Amino acid sequence: MVVRLALLGVGAVGRGIIHAVAEKNLGLIITAVADSRSGCIDPNGLNLKELLDRKEKIGICGDTSINAEAIVQTAPYDILVEITPTDARKGEPATSYIKEALKRGCHVVTSNKGPVALHYHELFTLALKNNVQFRFEATVAGAIPILQTLMHNLGGNEIQSLYGVLNGTCNYILTRMAEEKLTYKQALDEARTLGYAEADPTYDVKGIDAAIKLVILANTIWKKNVSLDDVDVTGIDLLTEEALRLAEQQDATIRLIGEIIPEDNVYRLCPRIIPKEHPLVVQGSLNAIIVRTDLAGDLLFVGKGAGSLETASAVIGDILSIRDMDAGGN
Amino acid sequence: MVVRLALLGVGAVGRGIIHAVAEKNLGLIITAVADSRSGCIDPNGLNLKELLDRKEKIGICGDTSINAEAIVQTAPYDILVEITPTDARKGEPATSYIKEALKRGCHVVTSNKGPVALHYHELFTLALKNNVQFRFEATVAGAIPILQTLMHNLGGNEIQSLYGVLNGTCNYILTRMAEEKLTYKQALDEARTLGYAEADPTYDVKGIDAAIKLVILANTIWKKNVSLDDVDVTGIDLLTEEALRLAEQQDATIRLIGEIIPEDNVYRLCPRIIPKEHPLVVQGSLNAIIVRTDLAGDLLFVGKGAGSLETASAVIGDILSIRDMDAGGN
Repeated sequence: MVVRLALLGVGAVGRGIIHAVAEKNLGLIITAVADSRSGCIDPNGLNLKELLDRKEKIGICGDTSINAEAIVQTAPYDILVEITPTDARKGEPATSYIKEALKRGCHVVTSNKGPVALHYHELFTLALKNNVQFRFEATVAGAIPILQTLMHNLGGNEIQSLYGVLNGTCNYILTRMAEEKLTYKQALDEARTLGYAEADPTYDVKGIDAAIKLVILANTIWKKNVSLDDVDVTGIDLLTEEALRLAEQQDATIRLIGEIIPEDNVYRLCPRIIPKEHPLVVQGSLNAIIVRTDLAGDLLFVGKGAGSLETASAVIGDILSIRDMDAGGN
Repeated sequence: MVVRLALLGVGAVGRGIIHAVAEKNLGLIITAVADSRSGCIDPNGLNLKELLDRKEKIGICGDTSINAEAIVQTAPYDILVEITPTDARKGEPATSYIKEALKRGCHVVTSNKGPVALHYHELFTLALKNNVQFRFEATVAGAIPILQTLMHNLGGNEIQSLYGVLNGTCNYILTRMAEEKLTYKQALDEARTLGYAEADPTYDVKGIDAAIKLVILANTIWKKNVSLDDVDVTGIDLLTEEALRLAEQQDATIRLIGEIIPEDNVYRLCPRIIPKEHPLVVQGSLNAIIVRTDLAGDLLFVGKGAGSLETASAVIGDILSIRDMDAGGN
């Protein structure tokens, strides 16, 4: 059985997914694609090489008379793959697309934090009602399949707490400040030059991005009903070089650590002084997560927290997990 | 829908599973249980508290006229949970039980390395033919859900190599030799006293246990067809204190590292000198695995490599994954 995908978003992640579908034998075809200005549909599967060439040459993937909304509503697909940029405040238009697809009885995979952080319970209920899957592994910790692990592989465990480095940009800045004795501003500039930080880095350095991931974890893993306002957030933008120096003098360093203790409704993100040999002291743009469980004990996961191929990996993992569910496993 | 389990084995892992089924609301009942001398069956679900009391008081769980074979062949169940001790040479009687259950159209979950290392392809084919699942997460790396992660969560990735600490007993011995300057014999005696090593530790210290895990990984993740003879194995039993001292003088230490490079058919287990800050230098009885992938990059997993609750966690993860597959996900 071939599974048909409709893809919204043809940025670096989208192109990574298209390459993987074209080059790996995954039992998938792409029947519709939209970028911000155009779209294309072929019920038998689009020619992906032509599509990527067109996108590279003329900047759009298809016909300007076809848009994302039309694709969501009318194209033939089994899974909507929604990978448009995150709008953290309203989650639109992604949330509307996702709802529409779920109502049509199609599965949805997204890398978009907005809809999950803002409307998870509504979207999950809608998916359940329509007997389809709603998955969003790419929204937390990049390439680390932490959501599938906590929701499925460790099923049966009580997840008692979670601690982690959830933002690669901040971790890169802190690593470079410590290693090379850079000032915050110097490290931030370097992160920008290397493409780890956006032109406006506020979202990362003030801790908003990592806090949104805590919201997603809290609401999906522990079925809480929290929003960004419920997270106690301190970013790294006010951190002084002196604080880092003091930590280093004690064979410690500083990392931006997110923390969830569900029993006590603790949702906290702040810079922490931690010993250098602690497993959460990862270098560069890595993410790291420790979970404490009742049966499996403590588990540590480390991997790349961002990047287009890494995000594509998470999206494809979700797609294949739905494909396998539909096929009855094995 | 309640899922019915038949459980073969009432050691510490079995009792952990029984406790979890009794105390957590997992949608599971246990309809049959066998230990080495007795068995019991109740199509409506056994009284688990009574069963555990009986096992503790009189040493057997049921009726001596009922044995494992009878349960496998005639009891009503959806999943056979096979957690009898490993027989690494022949894999019996576990392999026969597993085949019988698969032929009956029942899923199988096992923690038993013998059947998987020796007969994976035959058992997998039999499961496929009968449209049921065959799962064995507990056979590798204890509480770390590495098989589900590699087979499912990272689906779509090419797994290019794997390196890891796969035997907690050896890691404990090496840790103590380095930390406390113990001799190999002193550290081994300590591991025995603490229950980390068996009275006959050959299986662990000569590397057989870790090598069997490499065979399981090679055959299941990469669909290879290798046996224990194909693994280049060096244990830690001939390691001298001097070798460790030399490593320590260079801010390094020694760990027993398993390695798979599938493209080159490299399957190797040997003590390696590695820098102390390397992520595979985990302490005590922990396991640690690094996988290199084409999309997700490098990922590190660390967790407890053995223990009855940890093994129970892996078995229950498999059971719930089958339950979720049968229910169509979510």
